[in-house]
Amino acid sequence: MQKNGNSSPVRVLVDAMGGDYGPQEAVKGAIEALDAGNDAGNDARNDARNDARNIEIILVGDQGPIEAELARYDMAGKPVTIVPSVGKIGDDEHPVHGLRHKPEASILVATRLLKAGKGDVLVSMGSTGASMASSVMVLGLMEGLERPCIGGPFLGLAPRTIMVDMGSNVDCRPALLLSFAALGAGFAKKFLGIKSPRIGLLSVGAEEAKGNRQVQESYHLFQQSHLNFVGNVEGMDFFTDKADVVVCDGFVGNILMKFTEGLGGVLGEYLKKRLGPAISGPGAGSIIADLWTEMNLPRKMGGPLFGVNGTVILGHGSSRSDGIAGAIDTGVRCVDLDLVGGMRQELAEIYESGALRVS
Amino acid sequence: MQKNGNSSPVRVLVDAMGGDYGPQEAVKGAIEALDAGNDAGNDARNDARNDARNIEIILVGDQGPIEAELARYDMAGKPVTIVPSVGKIGDDEHPVHGLRHKPEASILVATRLLKAGKGDVLVSMGSTGASMASSVMVLGLMEGLERPCIGGPFLGLAPRTIMVDMGSNVDCRPALLLSFAALGAGFAKKFLGIKSPRIGLLSVGAEEAKGNRQVQESYHLFQQSHLNFVGNVEGMDFFTDKADVVVCDGFVGNILMKFTEGLGGVLGEYLKKRLGPAISGPGAGSIIADLWTEMNLPRKMGGPLFGVNGTVILGHGSSRSDGIAGAIDTGVRCVDLDLVGGMRQELAEIYESGALRVS
Repeated sequence: MQKNGNSSPVRVLVDAMGGDYGPQEAVKGAIEALDAGNDAGNDARNDARNDARNIEIILVGDQGPIEAELARYDMAGKPVTIVPSVGKIGDDEHPVHGLRHKPEASILVATRLLKAGKGDVLVSMGSTGASMASSVMVLGLMEGLERPCIGGPFLGLAPRTIMVDMGSNVDCRPALLLSFAALGAGFAKKFLGIKSPRIGLLSVGAEEAKGNRQVQESYHLFQQSHLNFVGNVEGMDFFTDKADVVVCDGFVGNILMKFTEGLGGVLGEYLKKRLGPAISGPGAGSIIADLWTEMNLPRKMGGPLFGVNGTVILGHGSSRSDGIAGAIDTGVRCVDLDLVGGMRQELAEIYESGALRVS
Repeated sequence: MQKNGNSSPVRVLVDAMGGDYGPQEAVKGAIEALDAGNDAGNDARNDARNDARNIEIILVGDQGPIEAELARYDMAGKPVTIVPSVGKIGDDEHPVHGLRHKPEASILVATRLLKAGKGDVLVSMGSTGASMASSVMVLGLMEGLERPCIGGPFLGLAPRTIMVDMGSNVDCRPALLLSFAALGAGFAKKFLGIKSPRIGLLSVGAEEAKGNRQVQESYHLFQQSHLNFVGNVEGMDFFTDKADVVVCDGFVGNILMKFTEGLGGVLGEYLKKRLGPAISGPGAGSIIADLWTEMNLPRKMGGPLFGVNGTVILGHGSSRSDGIAGAIDTGVRCVDLDLVGGMRQELAEIYESGALRVS
């Protein structure tokens, strides 16, 4: 990991219209990220980066509302610019339809700026489908890849276990799962500094014969690749250090993500009842708040889009400013670590190994 | 629900060889269940049953080891008998192969006793595959059903949400999922007293178009049935009271179950660290132990096998005596509630509705 010497600031494109709270939280989050100088030294997970990192913010969105938000802050000396766009693509719109009918929507304008080299990383809390479609259309997929996916750690209680796919591809053939595994391996190498990431296929038993048809077919394909494939892993293995990258289709990944979020909520309620009588003062509240964060890691740090030719960080639509600042920090790390280059290399090795053909 | 008037005792067949700890814990658990008279009044979940319930225990297994265990207790006046069998089918054996080569294994002998009416319910902590195969072979499947499954509540934090299938059928066609939904509805009516259980299909979004191919095809079939189908539900909806019965294939169900178990373990570790400094005395320990139980409900109460012509309760192989006693209590409830009759009726209505044909 690079610790110093990044003298030129990282230029962060922020989709200011994305997310449930629009420019209000996007602007606030961007300023929080600026003010922190991306000094993530207060987060144990980022312990390799103790130095501050200079960033510039480019807010993309409807000019009026963004200027109104900026007017709330003392912007003197802050490297923030606005690039105007027109409208946004909502969660309720079909992504491709939206992109076609709103050619100046914030996500499209921001992605074009990234493609043109006017920014180093794009951060959006907007419609996941629209962000993915825009990225594929404008930036293009890495060579040979059929679909992008979303990956990363998803549980603070298992911060070094990567899950891929987190929910973008519900029906996956084995070849697609293998390409996702390669992208996950690239992420684990770059982001977690693991030399030879252990890849596990999420299944219902460790034995080769265990699993549904998709997993059984994938098993053999994974064995033929250059990856450090450790076989099937099970639901509990997110916590057992058997694999660094757990591979599943987006159907299972999405269900696990949302299940965990929901569980975090009821756990908080449960602990409130139990801890209230046992702990006096604000202690119980901080334990519950911290636990919620542990159960909602992607809301705190966002998640990179895997497999497109550019650094794109997606976040939960319900993110508040801290989630947006966290996603910006994740994006800056991905730029500094050359995550895209790492993933591209890992994919290339998959093709060299003969396990997959360039499609 | 019947509260009184069950004058004749429920005869519980216990597979004393099943489970990781064999006769030692099976015998201990059976005696605990006897001593409690199945008075489950101390468990809020069983609040409809406050009266004690008479049971008899029939231990099935290798005679010597069972007698050695019984010798540890004062058995005077206790209604416990032994039916000898020879050997057991291990978790590492192929179920059908095991059944063929060990015709006097404990699970087979116990299932035959149930079939012959020598017992009212069978409880086993042994190999799930062997118990299922033995039940299907000896008791037979309910009319028109293709496969049995496992269902029930699986989270103490969401005790009124039933999941089906919990892990026995990894590849499921829509018709199979619909039959599981009917069995789950029967369970919810009988076990939870819900008049018209809401059935949800586990997917990645609430909209009809969301989901993998399996879910999309199932959606239409579910709509044609008599069931109170409320559409797709998502991972967080185990906790949102949108559905009483969440239907998924055993691949997803098994992963969710094991994920929850694993999470329960790391949550305990996390809370130990956080609560230790904040709570003095044994308070922290009891909160952590209770939370573990909430995350491992099937280990406490076992789970009925759905779809066979008899009441069979399966438990986790790692169950200790309290888990075995809990499974016995669940079994007695299922007998008193005529769970098998309820499921059979729900299945019959599915066929009458025309959504499925009797196969």
